[in-house]
Amino acid sequence: MAHDFTHLTKAFAAAGIDDPRLVRQMGFLFELEKLKSELRSTLTFADRDQRAVRNENVGEHSWHISVFALMLDEYARDKIDVMRAVKMLLIHDIIEIDSGDHDVYEVKDPEKLKLKESRGADRIFSLLPADQAAEYRALWQEFEDLKTPESQYAKAIDTLHPVLSNFLNGGAGWRQRNVPFSSVEALSAGKMREATPKLWAAVLACLEYGRGQNFFPKI
Amino acid sequence: MAHDFTHLTKAFAAAGIDDPRLVRQMGFLFELEKLKSELRSTLTFADRDQRAVRNENVGEHSWHISVFALMLDEYARDKIDVMRAVKMLLIHDIIEIDSGDHDVYEVKDPEKLKLKESRGADRIFSLLPADQAAEYRALWQEFEDLKTPESQYAKAIDTLHPVLSNFLNGGAGWRQRNVPFSSVEALSAGKMREATPKLWAAVLACLEYGRGQNFFPKI
Repeated sequence: MAHDFTHLTKAFAAAGIDDPRLVRQMGFLFELEKLKSELRSTLTFADRDQRAVRNENVGEHSWHISVFALMLDEYARDKIDVMRAVKMLLIHDIIEIDSGDHDVYEVKDPEKLKLKESRGADRIFSLLPADQAAEYRALWQEFEDLKTPESQYAKAIDTLHPVLSNFLNGGAGWRQRNVPFSSVEALSAGKMREATPKLWAAVLACLEYGRGQNFFPKI
Repeated sequence: MAHDFTHLTKAFAAAGIDDPRLVRQMGFLFELEKLKSELRSTLTFADRDQRAVRNENVGEHSWHISVFALMLDEYARDKIDVMRAVKMLLIHDIIEIDSGDHDVYEVKDPEKLKLKESRGADRIFSLLPADQAAEYRALWQEFEDLKTPESQYAKAIDTLHPVLSNFLNGGAGWRQRNVPFSSVEALSAGKMREATPKLWAAVLACLEYGRGQNFFPKI
């Protein structure tokens, strides 16, 4: 069954609606459907029996961490505009429509990936009308650059959820991908220790506990 | 593979972290995982070939309409705080953890459903610390009551996405569920005509066009 965007332009024409701005906005918004089939490494425990049944997709991930960000802003080191962080998280992974999702523990060439993502951002945000394209391309860049308190908080939250998911699953996702304690600790500390010290302490407690419980692969 | 929340409390205890507030917040946030397996009637066209492969889940739906809300606020009839509407949309379906998702065209007893959802809201938001529970339970109620411009805008956006999805899929979702033009038009008009007149005109153009193309079932 095909998604046929020409239906929209034909329907507008038939009704005498001449609104290229709205057509662009719809083109962008329906492009995002693709993230519902882009899979991440993180396993969900999504069914009603709380079993991990499948890999999380980027769409539901973006929703979940946006709610995390809403609820946990008291732990940001800096005073932040939490809704700006939420806005970033809602659009932060849009570039993966073009670049795909990459396991953070397996990125071989970060510079190459960065370029690919940046080109994705250029293409995807430019589907929007020019004013919105500029605003959201810049917001995505702010998230990437990690120079503002909001972007640092957003990145810490984006890191927190998969780490705790893997932990609550008894380390299944780490063992499956052969990711050792040291890698998880180093990566999480880098993203969380400064931005959300209290959440980092909680994560570290979980990682240490998980190490004692053999949640990590023996390497 | 079980999701074992006792891991978290044990890890905190082992590290000497006594923080019932954070434990409550985590309990709430991980309860939300369940929405990733709660399915809606709307079909996605989620894969890279843009085929409709499956029913949309509530998590990814919540993300997608939050981005819709971000991008389309210029069409709200009233001047609104768009981030308040986004906040509502991020949490509006949380009650479906308990009540399940219901096809809007098949609700037999709206009062009974309303009660079930209200009880769900009581239980789920009360997983949060009291201050956050009160804030978000009230925000959810505001969305339900449709008395503020933000809630009316949010509801219009929540209506817009599935209607356009069904339209872009050539009406597959309507024919599959045997939903006639008149039902779709009446329900969408009720949620959209006042709150977002221009978006409603666009949707009406699509519905009229779809009627001419046999997107609706013959009844």
